[in-house]
Amino acid sequence: MPVKSTISATVWSEFRHEKRNEQVRALYPNGMHEAIAEGLRESGAFKVQTATLDEPEHGLTQQVLDETDVLIWWGHIAHNEVQDEVVERVYRRVLAGMGLIVLHSALMSKIFMKLMGTTCDIKWREADEKERLWVVNPGHPIAAGLGEYIEIEAEEMYGEFFDVPAPEQLIFISWFAGGEVFRSGMTWTRGQGKIFYFRPGHETYPTYFNPEVRRVIANAARYVAEPGGTPPTFGNVKPLEKI
Amino acid sequence: MPVKSTISATVWSEFRHEKRNEQVRALYPNGMHEAIAEGLRESGAFKVQTATLDEPEHGLTQQVLDETDVLIWWGHIAHNEVQDEVVERVYRRVLAGMGLIVLHSALMSKIFMKLMGTTCDIKWREADEKERLWVVNPGHPIAAGLGEYIEIEAEEMYGEFFDVPAPEQLIFISWFAGGEVFRSGMTWTRGQGKIFYFRPGHETYPTYFNPEVRRVIANAARYVAEPGGTPPTFGNVKPLEKI
Amino acid sequence: MPVKSTISATVWSEFRHEKRNEQVRALYPNGMHEAIAEGLRESGAFKVQTATLDEPEHGLTQQVLDETDVLIWWGHIAHNEVQDEVVERVYRRVLAGMGLIVLHSALMSKIFMKLMGTTCDIKWREADEKERLWVVNPGHPIAAGLGEYIEIEAEEMYGEFFDVPAPEQLIFISWFAGGEVFRSGMTWTRGQGKIFYFRPGHETYPTYFNPEVRRVIANAARYVAEPGGTPPTFGNVKPLEKI
Amino acid sequence: MPVKSTISATVWSEFRHEKRNEQVRALYPNGMHEAIAEGLRESGAFKVQTATLDEPEHGLTQQVLDETDVLIWWGHIAHNEVQDEVVERVYRRVLAGMGLIVLHSALMSKIFMKLMGTTCDIKWREADEKERLWVVNPGHPIAAGLGEYIEIEAEEMYGEFFDVPAPEQLIFISWFAGGEVFRSGMTWTRGQGKIFYFRPGHETYPTYFNPEVRRVIANAARYVAEPGGTPPTFGNVKPLEKI
Repeated sequence: MPVKSTISATVWSEFRHEKRNEQVRALYPNGMHEAIAEGLRESGAFKVQTATLDEPEHGLTQQVLDETDVLIWWGHIAHNEVQDEVVERVYRRVLAGMGLIVLHSALMSKIFMKLMGTTCDIKWREADEKERLWVVNPGHPIAAGLGEYIEIEAEEMYGEFFDVPAPEQLIFISWFAGGEVFRSGMTWTRGQGKIFYFRPGHETYPTYFNPEVRRVIANAARYVAEPGGTPPTFGNVKPLEKI
Repeated sequence: MPVKSTISATVWSEFRHEKRNEQVRALYPNGMHEAIAEGLRESGAFKVQTATLDEPEHGLTQQVLDETDVLIWWGHIAHNEVQDEVVERVYRRVLAGMGLIVLHSALMSKIFMKLMGTTCDIKWREADEKERLWVVNPGHPIAAGLGEYIEIEAEEMYGEFFDVPAPEQLIFISWFAGGEVFRSGMTWTRGQGKIFYFRPGHETYPTYFNPEVRRVIANAARYVAEPGGTPPTFGNVKPLEKI
Repeated sequence: MPVKSTISATVWSEFRHEKRNEQVRALYPNGMHEAIAEGLRESGAFKVQTATLDEPEHGLTQQVLDETDVLIWWGHIAHNEVQDEVVERVYRRVLAGMGLIVLHSALMSKIFMKLMGTTCDIKWREADEKERLWVVNPGHPIAAGLGEYIEIEAEEMYGEFFDVPAPEQLIFISWFAGGEVFRSGMTWTRGQGKIFYFRPGHETYPTYFNPEVRRVIANAARYVAEPGGTPPTFGNVKPLEKI
Repeated sequence: MPVKSTISATVWSEFRHEKRNEQVRALYPNGMHEAIAEGLRESGAFKVQTATLDEPEHGLTQQVLDETDVLIWWGHIAHNEVQDEVVERVYRRVLAGMGLIVLHSALMSKIFMKLMGTTCDIKWREADEKERLWVVNPGHPIAAGLGEYIEIEAEEMYGEFFDVPAPEQLIFISWFAGGEVFRSGMTWTRGQGKIFYFRPGHETYPTYFNPEVRRVIANAARYVAEPGGTPPTFGNVKPLEKI
């Protein structure tokens, strides 16, 4: 039962908005992945690397994945450019126990839709709207160090119905000024892999510099990276008892 | 697999506010239980009776409970006046398969707290606030016939954290104008009994005349009244196989 | 809240073993789908049709699916022959609210794997083994009319780990004489669609003539066919409140 | 997000069988609590103390509980001798975030029944029966370091239906030679407290010396002791937004 002293985290993002959009580049000059990675690094519990869409194999070779305990994924406008072969590779690694954190618009990524088995569709609005994420599971380690809610002065709105399977654990529910709610922090297990979806982080806001948002991502990275038991075996087996 | 053609519903309420408070009496001259009962009657699927706190045994004799498929419970200011013996009787009936619908402030009733194992505490505010109940499980029979949300122009606010166990099914999440959210429609099973909690219905509002609120209560009454299997047996047993 | 008086059920099977294997043909001369359909018909609550792999479009045209409230699926040796286009069509219908019952070896069907997001793999053994399905949710309508367990004298064994997401409701757990257990009755929701997996039914046993197995399938068909609420809408929306 | 380097565990047991029954004393000369405590100590992650029924306040003063991150509870023949005041004290501490592990026959303890809201009743048999605990959630940290199942050569049998609420996480299912199954490792949350029930450990067997049983208890102790977020507040609140 030794706690791994260092968790290997890989932060992946498209890194496209930052190259094309002045506003996003001003906020995230080194890319959104670097801001997310910085948050993990400052928590002191992780060995962090990054990977982006335009690298060979999107930076996600088998070796990188094999050495990754938790993969954080941000995508938005280029979901379809992610090669199916890499999606399949990530999928197999999740089922084999790698943790996965899916951020904001990455809900429409190939990997998340494949793991969920649903469309993952939502309502949305860009209106500089106040978001308040209420903690509805205050005993959960992902909520450690937070108050009763996180307030974000301006964000994109996401509204229900969010077409995902009922979560195993619901940790945050967002309130939006314009009248909607959203299940904004949820966990699922697939195979041996633990998955956390976290809503905030539209590219035009400095959300990934928010200390509480960083805390949630670090808490969640540790939670989903926690190792489970032995890999199951499948197929034709002999009886264990006399029959 | 025959569907019961008629479901026996018993609507219970304190019937105290209506006697003491002019505003409540004006809204519910025959008591809140009668307004709730009327909603069930008009749906055509139920045989409905009512029971109230000040009747002998609170109107909940063993015979009444034995003949009840679903009990609807509204209480607020007199939870402590409900006799423990009657609470125990209702509790045993729920475990034996009677459905239970707990409305609004009845979250602090003895029977609900006993079944939940928690304090069932909340945040609250009386401010004539707009409530919008979003459907987050649109395939659920309790949401049948509704749109994407129910809007109530003015209600008391209830806010998270709502100290109940994680529900088996989360069907509604409320948005309140003042900045809070609430898990406002949830199911649990205890023994063979199915339980539904539904938030709306402060005594100073005409909420139980709202057709959508009535629809939810009727849908839920049918859902939790659905019979299950044979009662389990307990205790010392012989082996089924040679050991 | 009117209960649909008649539920439209479509029973689909490969209908291959019955043509090639003398033993299976002897048990199921008209095909396994006909035995399953007969069980539904005798319950009196369903309008039943069948469809099989070798019909055009596998018998599952858009019109057939649109008129189907619940689809029952049995497959084993020809999962890969099911056309992706038909799988996609069934998938969309499930998300839109059609109930789905997945039987035995159909756990490896394309449609089930796509809805689960996992491999759905298992351990298995053919050894004429006793199976005992214990009811672990005796208040559930799918267990209505059953005793504390169902015993099947001889069946194929399926053992854990069963690589599916944690179910929303676990209703049966199987005990096998050879030493394994299996979560053999489970429900999930995907979109508006309710799904039930039920383990028994290897082609070399007369399992689908067993009255208790038939009862479970009829109970489940009614449960997953129950209509939910209005279909959700997705995409860019205007604020409901002034922001 | 600092991981607590040392977790404070308190192991409580009745310590009655050991004084009265020769067979039990031979197995557990220092009491069952000492064998359980030894298992935690050898894992190296815990600061361990013990408490027993016949100490003043059963050894569970407010101060002891305040300093306890996880309480492990074993009881069997003297559930009714546990004072209600101490039960209430433990209950409040669990809701405030203390982890709780309930072992074997402690399912009938006052504290577990109060937290569950059900009878917690079971079937049982003493017949030196083989038990095999299958891992059905192999990604869960409580299964870390285990194989696909744990085998115990001889134990008391517990059979379904186990009258508890559906668990949030089901980790183990037991197979018994005599024909029963049992959900033998489950988690629930109550307030901020995480609870784990684990089946093995009848007093006439050396179960708490079994290295795999010890591993599960140590894994679980770490899991349920994990701190959550800030304690929620309840009661009348002002609006956060202008209404």
